Amino acid sequence: MKNSKLSHYDQSGAASMVDVSGKPISSRSATARAYVSMPADVMAAIPHNTKGDPLEVARIAGISAAKKTSELIPLCHQLPLSHVAVEFRLEKAGIEITAKARTVAQTGVEMEAMTAAAVAALTIYDMTKALNKAIEIREIYLLEKTGGKSGTFRRTPAK
Amino acid sequence: MKNSKLSHYDQSGAASMVDVSGKPISSRSATARAYVSMPADVMAAIPHNTKGDPLEVARIAGISAAKKTSELIPLCHQLPLSHVAVEFRLEKAGIEITAKARTVAQTGVEMEAMTAAAVAALTIYDMTKALNKAIEIREIYLLEKTGGKSGTFRRTPAK
Amino acid sequence: MKNSKLSHYDQSGAASMVDVSGKPISSRSATARAYVSMPADVMAAIPHNTKGDPLEVARIAGISAAKKTSELIPLCHQLPLSHVAVEFRLEKAGIEITAKARTVAQTGVEMEAMTAAAVAALTIYDMTKALNKAIEIREIYLLEKTGGKSGTFRRTPAK
Amino acid sequence: MKNSKLSHYDQSGAASMVDVSGKPISSRSATARAYVSMPADVMAAIPHNTKGDPLEVARIAGISAAKKTSELIPLCHQLPLSHVAVEFRLEKAGIEITAKARTVAQTGVEMEAMTAAAVAALTIYDMTKALNKAIEIREIYLLEKTGGKSGTFRRTPAK
Amino acid sequence: MKNSKLSHYDQSGAASMVDVSGKPISSRSATARAYVSMPADVMAAIPHNTKGDPLEVARIAGISAAKKTSELIPLCHQLPLSHVAVEFRLEKAGIEITAKARTVAQTGVEMEAMTAAAVAALTIYDMTKALNKAIEIREIYLLEKTGGKSGTFRRTPAK
Amino acid sequence: MKNSKLSHYDQSGAASMVDVSGKPISSRSATARAYVSMPADVMAAIPHNTKGDPLEVARIAGISAAKKTSELIPLCHQLPLSHVAVEFRLEKAGIEITAKARTVAQTGVEMEAMTAAAVAALTIYDMTKALNKAIEIREIYLLEKTGGKSGTFRRTPAK
Repeated sequence: MKNSKLSHYDQSGAASMVDVSGKPISSRSATARAYVSMPADVMAAIPHNTKGDPLEVARIAGISAAKKTSELIPLCHQLPLSHVAVEFRLEKAGIEITAKARTVAQTGVEMEAMTAAAVAALTIYDMTKALNKAIEIREIYLLEKTGGKSGTFRRTPAK
Repeated sequence: MKNSKLSHYDQSGAASMVDVSGKPISSRSATARAYVSMPADVMAAIPHNTKGDPLEVARIAGISAAKKTSELIPLCHQLPLSHVAVEFRLEKAGIEITAKARTVAQTGVEMEAMTAAAVAALTIYDMTKALNKAIEIREIYLLEKTGGKSGTFRRTPAK
Repeated sequence: MKNSKLSHYDQSGAASMVDVSGKPISSRSATARAYVSMPADVMAAIPHNTKGDPLEVARIAGISAAKKTSELIPLCHQLPLSHVAVEFRLEKAGIEITAKARTVAQTGVEMEAMTAAAVAALTIYDMTKALNKAIEIREIYLLEKTGGKSGTFRRTPAK
Repeated sequence: MKNSKLSHYDQSGAASMVDVSGKPISSRSATARAYVSMPADVMAAIPHNTKGDPLEVARIAGISAAKKTSELIPLCHQLPLSHVAVEFRLEKAGIEITAKARTVAQTGVEMEAMTAAAVAALTIYDMTKALNKAIEIREIYLLEKTGGKSGTFRRTPAK
Repeated sequence: MKNSKLSHYDQSGAASMVDVSGKPISSRSATARAYVSMPADVMAAIPHNTKGDPLEVARIAGISAAKKTSELIPLCHQLPLSHVAVEFRLEKAGIEITAKARTVAQTGVEMEAMTAAAVAALTIYDMTKALNKAIEIREIYLLEKTGGKSGTFRRTPAK
Repeated sequence: MKNSKLSHYDQSGAASMVDVSGKPISSRSATARAYVSMPADVMAAIPHNTKGDPLEVARIAGISAAKKTSELIPLCHQLPLSHVAVEFRLEKAGIEITAKARTVAQTGVEMEAMTAAAVAALTIYDMTKALNKAIEIREIYLLEKTGGKSGTFRRTPAK
């Protein structure tokens, strides 16, 4: 398998930001998922009152990070996101994060969704880490993407 | 368990950047670990020649991200990092990332190490995702920290 | 009045970056105004020579801030600004700042104009604050916007 | 009154970042205030439930902006903030924002507190502007500062 | 020659981000060149093995900087780059850097190519400066641009 | 000459941010120089009136860039700059830029001075490039540094 099959490499094998100037502009979306695993007693401490819910801080962090994706991932294109949302589902021993991104552009938003999910997870970790050392971030992966030449992809979440 | 036991909350329960102005300046370090799981054939495609190794791009991305931690994680303090390193260990079905950060400051660098590991993992994902849809980011956690009032913490990596 | 009438909330009530992917691209502009109030003797100290005019520093700060709006305001969309200008009118007891922004995009530039005006005002404050403690920033508001579904809005400046 | 009496000018009159290398490191704090004026019906729409409170988004925006002050205000020094907090008081016809910043450094944090207050105000404006065109940002000023050569300053809020 | 002939000035002579809202969107490219001059023994120390090649760090730095151009150059427009590449040619007494940028936008990418070349050069300087004090950055200039109203420009590299 | 003699490489040869945690904090300064070469008629167009002097825009750009050095140069440490100044000397066929930076820290500010000089030069180029295609950036190098283990370095400017 040669270099040229990896993303982000030009013909000489040097890393570059792939040329998308010839690609059509189209509507694209992506959804990524991350999981923060934490003991039940930490879960119980996640507050649900108006002030100071860690999930609200994480939501804003994730949305803001989606907009910074091309600053963080060296070979990502800058994309004008038309929608970003971060949602949480509280389970007995952890929090499932779902991040969606959407754009109308020449390339896709997989990395934007992945980055939003990862930074939301890091923020939850930051805000709960004093409670318990067993907290950790688990599987971060793409759930779905639509649009672009490769079309729709859907994955069954790992269980 | 009350809000005040969560990090980053003041007495009224509002999110804030914790006041560390009274804490002594001391030498602190942290090491975090992330894992990118990928099928063996994708592993074989990770090139090792001078130009265009995804790991080198990921290394720089991780180091740069460590310096951006306080921009990404809303309640993190700005810290002058005195050292950052990102290392990789190639396994049969994935890449283990180890990120170390060090500072001489009033608060610790756990989030800087975690952020470096997470962004290095996202970068590897970005550069290999075209090869296979089964690539995913796995456990991101703290391996070790030293310094500060809570002293040294060490964890045995999950196996 | 329910949450859904506030901007930036999705159906479940969670904060999100509003989905504008279905909106048409159109030409939009906005003009905002801020005021820095300062005693007459401070006004007299604002230099007008080639080097070191605080207004020139404030102008650049305002223009640069307009480009950073989506980094500062969590739920703002990233917009490629096609024009930004910051102008000053010196009055007896203060400086009136007018900031204009323009784009061709799916959403408007009100926040870009507001942010440019606010940061220009903060910069003037920064550069004159050593002279007098009575300096303060006054009314920041939208003077005008054009384009988009809601069309043109014009406000008579407060007097 | 000559240029040299303005902050941020060197002997030749050129704008520069003032040399603080000879100043002692000391503990410093500052508190700034901003006001967002809005009709009573808009005030009633500010939600207080767990998800999607504009004040929580504004709080995070203000704290994050404090950390970005030296990127926004051209001649501000980079300061490692040891504490940032943003608080709100809801009145009948508006929201009073109080932002506090603290550092242990060679120069003060007035601009960090002012910037946090201003960006929190801009964020509230952003999230409510669809409800009513009469919303505006009012007086932004310094309430208090401590530390440094000029010592403590306290101002009675305008009423 | 009047102010109005300089870029970035409006009719009153004030600096502003030029209004491009009336310009057509078209495909544009630019190529810039920089040179890092270094003694032959420093050239010999530039490693070519997989890990730690300064050129790979400089390549990523240059690509990342191209995406930050509008943050660095105050009156530059934000442009969604569709391609960025940085290449190196090793000579006996220095390294020639070629940076290419491409966009589909209302204005050109000359500054993006220039910035990528300059920051790649600064990065090589940073990574070799400990070896020899005679290292310096030499001529940075535009080699070529295409697209836009002024059409194609090509320059013979200085020899 | 082995890798270990290059800056920014650890023992295994991997790029890393050098560990400075054991170095003493001391006062350090650096001065860098860049040159923008332009035909005499372009020089004559550089305006000297209050509004819109390209040199004032370049001065602010250079100072702001110094504060961003660690974001641009991947392996640079974050440094709290205690002073930055950018000065210009107009010659018959070009503009000489001198940038000074100062810190009290564990490592030096050579790259901050170099970056300020380079970005000031890029900004002048940006604001004059419409006038003449022969404008180019010339020698960027370190004029002087003080402080740190290697002590004072002074270079005679090239003539």
